[in-house]
Amino acid sequence: MKDVQARTESALDRYLPAATQAPERLHEAMRYAALGGGKRVRPLLCHAAGEALDAPVAALDAAAAALEMIHVYSLVHDDLPSMDNDAMRRGKPTVHVQYDDATGLLVGDALQTQAFLTLCDEAIPAARRAGLVAELAMASGSQGMAGGQAIDLASVGLKLTREQLENMHRLKTGALLRAAVRLGAMCGASDADATASHAALASLDVYASAIGLAFQVVDDILDVTADSATLGKTAGKDAAADKPTYVSLLGLDASRALARQLQAEANQALLPFGARAQRLSELAELVVQRAY
Amino acid sequence: MKDVQARTESALDRYLPAATQAPERLHEAMRYAALGGGKRVRPLLCHAAGEALDAPVAALDAAAAALEMIHVYSLVHDDLPSMDNDAMRRGKPTVHVQYDDATGLLVGDALQTQAFLTLCDEAIPAARRAGLVAELAMASGSQGMAGGQAIDLASVGLKLTREQLENMHRLKTGALLRAAVRLGAMCGASDADATASHAALASLDVYASAIGLAFQVVDDILDVTADSATLGKTAGKDAAADKPTYVSLLGLDASRALARQLQAEANQALLPFGARAQRLSELAELVVQRAY
Repeated sequence: MKDVQARTESALDRYLPAATQAPERLHEAMRYAALGGGKRVRPLLCHAAGEALDAPVAALDAAAAALEMIHVYSLVHDDLPSMDNDAMRRGKPTVHVQYDDATGLLVGDALQTQAFLTLCDEAIPAARRAGLVAELAMASGSQGMAGGQAIDLASVGLKLTREQLENMHRLKTGALLRAAVRLGAMCGASDADATASHAALASLDVYASAIGLAFQVVDDILDVTADSATLGKTAGKDAAADKPTYVSLLGLDASRALARQLQAEANQALLPFGARAQRLSELAELVVQRAY
Repeated sequence: MKDVQARTESALDRYLPAATQAPERLHEAMRYAALGGGKRVRPLLCHAAGEALDAPVAALDAAAAALEMIHVYSLVHDDLPSMDNDAMRRGKPTVHVQYDDATGLLVGDALQTQAFLTLCDEAIPAARRAGLVAELAMASGSQGMAGGQAIDLASVGLKLTREQLENMHRLKTGALLRAAVRLGAMCGASDADATASHAALASLDVYASAIGLAFQVVDDILDVTADSATLGKTAGKDAAADKPTYVSLLGLDASRALARQLQAEANQALLPFGARAQRLSELAELVVQRAY
């Protein structure tokens, strides 16, 4: 995992414009936001899924960098005063605090653009590029991540049913985690054996949905049980903002049991891959057992 | 031109998620921002360039919709309180005034994503999609439109040289106008005759650079000479914000002369196309002679 995290750092460094290139301050701020932090969960998922399907590692590096740019753009915008108004992220001041609000806005905008540009890099086979762009766009736009954030905003102070809460998280966090798995798999999918590729993607979808949900359940648990220093962001803020969470809906014990049940579902979906899915199984463990 | 504007309205309606689709409020706000207004300069340029190279009109509709989504996203974010804090756009309340600041942020984010998704539509030949995505991303990201906005923000109250002012506008407005011409041309470019396609794109680049700059010069003139009702946005705000403009740098008469000179340069670049460039020539006229 350390290897993939280092590869991702290096790919982000390569696929982001240099800080010496004009406009320097914007590029410096984009790199401040994206480099040197984060668990890199999406890149890890992308590489692990690609490994299960023998994808070329250079393509996975590009896809992983694009996924992380989208994730970081969403964090930067989420932290802005008009959204969560948060001052701390990945253990350092948020972009709009370190720079200014307008720069925070532009950094997020430009990171999103850079993500799609990165998917058109020659490291990715020409015939795959548009498919990856469409997949990432569907997962991150108004019917994916951005849509989930809109629902999240509209849900503050409301009592959501478990179904509504699940739907919100399926979009807000789940869609991009699922895209991470799918992009990795698509880099390795074979045109020669379309039926096998299709079956593999279907199994990976089940895996990705389960760990996407587990990720959010654990996030809700950690918001209550961990401190800000461990999390690298403000703890307890969901409860403070009266946001609906799994813990507020189910309680702490039932939330923990749910996370473990989802991990079991994820592992079951990996059976057809045998030993090739070792990393994906380890990641399911990481998602559920993580302390931050 | 009315025909292309109507086609663009219809393409935007088709390529934007329905307002009845969840999350409804976000989709409604995206449509509020994008539909029923605007001069549609970028779609007009895209269709005119495509016409000069016999591009299929369905592909041009998709490319034009994508270009306009990027343009509208930039307007929505530009109008936010942390940027220009503007209350009026295209003759109606800006998105964050009509809805709220967070929705304005998400509408811009999701419109950008939808633009790249639209370029992956089947209306565009599969082999062209990734090239169009890369072109639009280069033009709108940190080394294009968003970069120009960063430079613009950093220039308030500064004395720019004409070269610096031109560089800012080449990015902030010029890059997307140039992309409009190039996307249209790329939809029609022939793989069979790569040399001719390359030469055509080079000529169109000269045209696009000239009218891109002319567009900004005229914007600066109108900011001084037109009223808010005619413009559909707040007049005189550049002067009020002490932003460097062509009028403040060259004066009104010299700015008008410059716009006409740029129109002549644009027309000269169209000569190799003969009658097929009729629309592009008319658009150069429109850009320079427009009253709003």
